Amino acid sequence: MGAVPDPLPAPDVTLADLGEFGLIDRVARIVREVAPGEDVLVGPGDDAAVLRVRKGHVVVSTDLMVEGRHFRKDWADAVDVGHRAAAQNLSDINAMGGRATWLTVGFAAPPTLPARWALDFVRGFAEECAEVGAGVVGGDVTSSEKIAIAVTVIGSCAVSPVLRSGAQAGDVVALRGRQGWAAGGLAVLGRGFRSPRVLVDAYRRPQPPYDAGAVAAEAGATAMIDVSDGLLADAAHVARASGVGIDITSATLEVPDPLVAVASATGADPLSFVLGGGDDHALLATFPAGSGLPDDWLRIGAVTEPGPHGPAVTVDGSPYDGSVGWTHF
Amino acid sequence: MGAVPDPLPAPDVTLADLGEFGLIDRVARIVREVAPGEDVLVGPGDDAAVLRVRKGHVVVSTDLMVEGRHFRKDWADAVDVGHRAAAQNLSDINAMGGRATWLTVGFAAPPTLPARWALDFVRGFAEECAEVGAGVVGGDVTSSEKIAIAVTVIGSCAVSPVLRSGAQAGDVVALRGRQGWAAGGLAVLGRGFRSPRVLVDAYRRPQPPYDAGAVAAEAGATAMIDVSDGLLADAAHVARASGVGIDITSATLEVPDPLVAVASATGADPLSFVLGGGDDHALLATFPAGSGLPDDWLRIGAVTEPGPHGPAVTVDGSPYDGSVGWTHF
Repeated sequence: MGAVPDPLPAPDVTLADLGEFGLIDRVARIVREVAPGEDVLVGPGDDAAVLRVRKGHVVVSTDLMVEGRHFRKDWADAVDVGHRAAAQNLSDINAMGGRATWLTVGFAAPPTLPARWALDFVRGFAEECAEVGAGVVGGDVTSSEKIAIAVTVIGSCAVSPVLRSGAQAGDVVALRGRQGWAAGGLAVLGRGFRSPRVLVDAYRRPQPPYDAGAVAAEAGATAMIDVSDGLLADAAHVARASGVGIDITSATLEVPDPLVAVASATGADPLSFVLGGGDDHALLATFPAGSGLPDDWLRIGAVTEPGPHGPAVTVDGSPYDGSVGWTHF
Repeated sequence: MGAVPDPLPAPDVTLADLGEFGLIDRVARIVREVAPGEDVLVGPGDDAAVLRVRKGHVVVSTDLMVEGRHFRKDWADAVDVGHRAAAQNLSDINAMGGRATWLTVGFAAPPTLPARWALDFVRGFAEECAEVGAGVVGGDVTSSEKIAIAVTVIGSCAVSPVLRSGAQAGDVVALRGRQGWAAGGLAVLGRGFRSPRVLVDAYRRPQPPYDAGAVAAEAGATAMIDVSDGLLADAAHVARASGVGIDITSATLEVPDPLVAVASATGADPLSFVLGGGDDHALLATFPAGSGLPDDWLRIGAVTEPGPHGPAVTVDGSPYDGSVGWTHF
């Protein structure tokens, strides 16, 4: 690694000033400082990281975030963007019933970006990973017109991974974690406001229920997904993968007061944030009827036979006519 | 996965027409067709891929390619870009002495991109992976102004991974694979020409010596790297990581006739392509003096004590004054 670099350059130092390898050295130092990671024999800096694995199942997921589409520098600071990027990926492993262990980060940015933004991002990212005991083991940096962040997360499962495809008619549909809060925060930010602060913070730094995925897997969850596209949109992923219908009972959904306030101010249905919002990374799972739900899971609906038009999601027995989350093109 | 999609939409079908999930379905189908991958219990389509691992060392590497910087759509077709993107990553595992097994691909592109470009890219990518028996197990798609491709590759090592940091004074420096050809092709394309075809093809579809990394590891290589930034630049990575000097003997380097022709036409030193070029993904390794080199490795220099200014690379005993490869900012 050569001489130990100063991890925090002055605010006016750009990526171009720091250079690719100056950036890499500092990133590696932050990552080691925050959490070296378990079973990491070689971390960032070589052609590849070297990891010790035990015989078993490894789960892998990858995500790409693009500035302007997935985040805006004026809506969240770099540390928050780091937390969000990590949370989004850690949540995918949570949704398999697994435990995240190692992550890689690809970072593309304009040469004029202040280097501190990149390093603050890395720190937030590594801190979020450390919350579940995972470490950053590799990465890549390159230049681009807009910031793009590519994350791959690797984890392991103590029991069989819970897929999207295992839901069966008669199962209970349950939710764990805040849902709709981040969408409310995003709506607020999109209108140039900064409050209710609790919603803005929920958008900036999601709090996925990291402990809940493995617990649900052990409790016999038949299907599971993290709510990233939207509650109804992600329920539809489960419905399609499992070949079932899913009916959500709207009265069971929690609509917190701040969401009611935002909905009132923006002329929206508060329930639309809960049904359509996605960035909280709650877990949606199905459990066999009659088996109790693990702690803090909320029963919100039921798995049904597929409808006349195939697998679909309904709300209170009918198709929902509001927004059901986003797609990427 | 629902109904089986037609994998090849008409040329005028864009990503926006196909939609995120239409694209994902087709990508998953191509990936399964080309090579399902070994020990893949769940491939693309769930929150994470599920992979069976044996106890041992796993190696992981990640790379980010951005349109206009790492590739141009008018310099290589989508299938070739796919081959290149995969080769670049497979080569990192090769450089550890490992065998690549699984890859993930993040793909960001404008909604107006013809969907066939994306699918051709995936096909080329998966085909290149299949050459070493590796499979694509996951991915993500999103929209962006320019195409960005994020790849993570996971592999395993039968023997201890060969790091950059193990070179010792007295070791032999050796090269395996074509070197400088892709840089020659790039120079030709950058001037609007398409020949010598052998160089252009070398740029469009590199031929890394995939079999050579594991062989070198078994033969006792003390350090190894793939030449992606440039021969001297990557030798400098080894020198720094190992705390040694590296001296390259220029007369040992092969300068093929087409490179001589291109250098003559462009007024360049043909050796500059070999010393500065990087996209061929040759392997550069060090071996203990006195131990024979594995087949097809070319002895090109020696590891020395670090010079008065620390670890550095010299050519014929002196600092090289030409281009030594690229950095990313």
